[in-house]
Amino acid sequence: MVGTVTAALDVMGGDAGADMVLPGAEIAAERIPGVRYVLFGDAASVEPLLARYPKLGVISSFEHCDLAIGMEDKPGQALRRGRGTSSMWRAIETVKDGKAGVAVSAGNTGALMAMSKFCLKDAKDIDRPAIAAVWPTLKGESVVLDVGATIGATSEQLYQFAVMGAAMSRALLGRAKPTVGLLNIGVEEVKGLEQVRLAGRLLKEAELPFLDYAGFVEGDDIGKGAVDVIVTEGFAGNIALKTAEGTARQIAAYLRETVEENLMSRLGFLLARRAFGKLRKKLDTRRMNGGVFLGLNGLVIKSHGGTDAEGFAAAIEIGCSMARNGIVEKINEDVALHRPERPAVAVDDATSGVA
Amino acid sequence: MVGTVTAALDVMGGDAGADMVLPGAEIAAERIPGVRYVLFGDAASVEPLLARYPKLGVISSFEHCDLAIGMEDKPGQALRRGRGTSSMWRAIETVKDGKAGVAVSAGNTGALMAMSKFCLKDAKDIDRPAIAAVWPTLKGESVVLDVGATIGATSEQLYQFAVMGAAMSRALLGRAKPTVGLLNIGVEEVKGLEQVRLAGRLLKEAELPFLDYAGFVEGDDIGKGAVDVIVTEGFAGNIALKTAEGTARQIAAYLRETVEENLMSRLGFLLARRAFGKLRKKLDTRRMNGGVFLGLNGLVIKSHGGTDAEGFAAAIEIGCSMARNGIVEKINEDVALHRPERPAVAVDDATSGVA
Repeated sequence: MVGTVTAALDVMGGDAGADMVLPGAEIAAERIPGVRYVLFGDAASVEPLLARYPKLGVISSFEHCDLAIGMEDKPGQALRRGRGTSSMWRAIETVKDGKAGVAVSAGNTGALMAMSKFCLKDAKDIDRPAIAAVWPTLKGESVVLDVGATIGATSEQLYQFAVMGAAMSRALLGRAKPTVGLLNIGVEEVKGLEQVRLAGRLLKEAELPFLDYAGFVEGDDIGKGAVDVIVTEGFAGNIALKTAEGTARQIAAYLRETVEENLMSRLGFLLARRAFGKLRKKLDTRRMNGGVFLGLNGLVIKSHGGTDAEGFAAAIEIGCSMARNGIVEKINEDVALHRPERPAVAVDDATSGVA
Repeated sequence: MVGTVTAALDVMGGDAGADMVLPGAEIAAERIPGVRYVLFGDAASVEPLLARYPKLGVISSFEHCDLAIGMEDKPGQALRRGRGTSSMWRAIETVKDGKAGVAVSAGNTGALMAMSKFCLKDAKDIDRPAIAAVWPTLKGESVVLDVGATIGATSEQLYQFAVMGAAMSRALLGRAKPTVGLLNIGVEEVKGLEQVRLAGRLLKEAELPFLDYAGFVEGDDIGKGAVDVIVTEGFAGNIALKTAEGTARQIAAYLRETVEENLMSRLGFLLARRAFGKLRKKLDTRRMNGGVFLGLNGLVIKSHGGTDAEGFAAAIEIGCSMARNGIVEKINEDVALHRPERPAVAVDDATSGVA
């Protein structure tokens, strides 16, 4: 028998707000046994809509919030203005108070991260949070982090990201001892930024029981599923994620042109439509929706602002699955298990690498 | 009437060496009117093969070299050992001596860059070289740089990359006044590394007559063809390039599975085979082969080590087209036209951005 899991939803977040969040929550409810929602938003605009989703009524409570954070609000400004009152803050606070296992918002990333850090605080022994993405690969799914929270991470931070990513792979994807790679570039002359080389050394020397350090990987190893967890700093990680999404959309556009090319191609794709349907599903970037904030005392999921109900449902599913598997506790345990000494060697010395 | 263009080829470079370089050169010769080759390699292994490509004999001269640089050789070691004698060095030297317009090698990137810098020297007013890639987009082709030469470029270096990338777009792709974007990430809290923000300011203030600065772009804008030139530092650029290639190969694998899914799909794709052939061409990552070393006193093209003859031909084509259009001279002229003052503002002040 499965217990309940509660998700706090920021109904005002995203480009379409309640029109996207509520149907998304209904789709997710059909897929997640025992899910319950606490919904935060503006009563005047949300309550009339709620009536259209009778199933939600049964498993949800609704709380009115006077304020909604805009997609263009600056993080500091959003925090000052929206603390305590906004739908985004209230959703996060519900996690802090232990009344929900996860908060999900499609609101702006900077504001959501600023509020999450302020409200939930960094987890013990974690210097900086990371945003993790679930990346579809030829072998299944990998965890990629950081995709935008910590720019230019240090070697210790990369080490912590590896531990957190491995915990996520275990909690969400059921890997017993996930393989972990550090994202690097293959140009020999410059192989490895100092912090990446040093992080590799930390991971190698730590010999952690719950992850299998596999050395450096390159950009094209992600899609291959070469490792279960790919670790990088937030700038390169964000660019990798967005570039992959862009490439997938580019090829999907080529594919549509191909179908429409001539009479024979239209007929051909009609015959192949069952197989083609599967392909379309694989190319659907909504499957990748849901950036997971790791390294805080509580779980927050960031959905794309421009997603639709299907994409938002995917974000809720990831969140509930991780909440159910006690990801926050797992990370805390794992980090406590082995805290590397700050390495005594100078950074310039660390040229050995593990590639 | 088209004049001749001479390419110096390192016949020993790449995983397959002469077996790949010679047929590649023959394919390229059919496509490039007036091309001539100077071939460098080991006589004992290359000359017997050369006999199989009679067309090459007519337009090529061959020079024996005692030494070949290995794919695993460290750059410094390759330079010490191979200077003056290796096929890689001799090809680059031919460009320095003005006897070839471009050198093409599929040898290891680090060694090729180290030798190119040592032999050709940095161009006037250019601090660091960049490797530029031609990236197929929904609108045609864009230039992306740096994809691996200069890790963590400064704002001045990014500015120089923008100037060089625009010159390449004009020389290779015929854009009169290319649009240029700086690659950045869209997380509000951290929007813009300091050096990226500052580079944006330099470009905006310079009001260069030969490029149109379009502000920040994100990873998914590359495939859209949002701008003609995408500028970034070498770590993120290399990861973006490899990730896109990996995603394209991943989707190509899905597509093959789709074709083989069942009898109807096989029949369908048979009917659609003409349209499908065009798609296959678009997904062919060999089209992207050929990293262009910019910022040196001479033109060098790096081919993928693992490419085949078709891919190597693409690298030769890019090189000859750029040599013919006087890319090195164009860059020197453009850089001389406007050299930005080192900005007086502190980096922390530069929070305005141009996004």
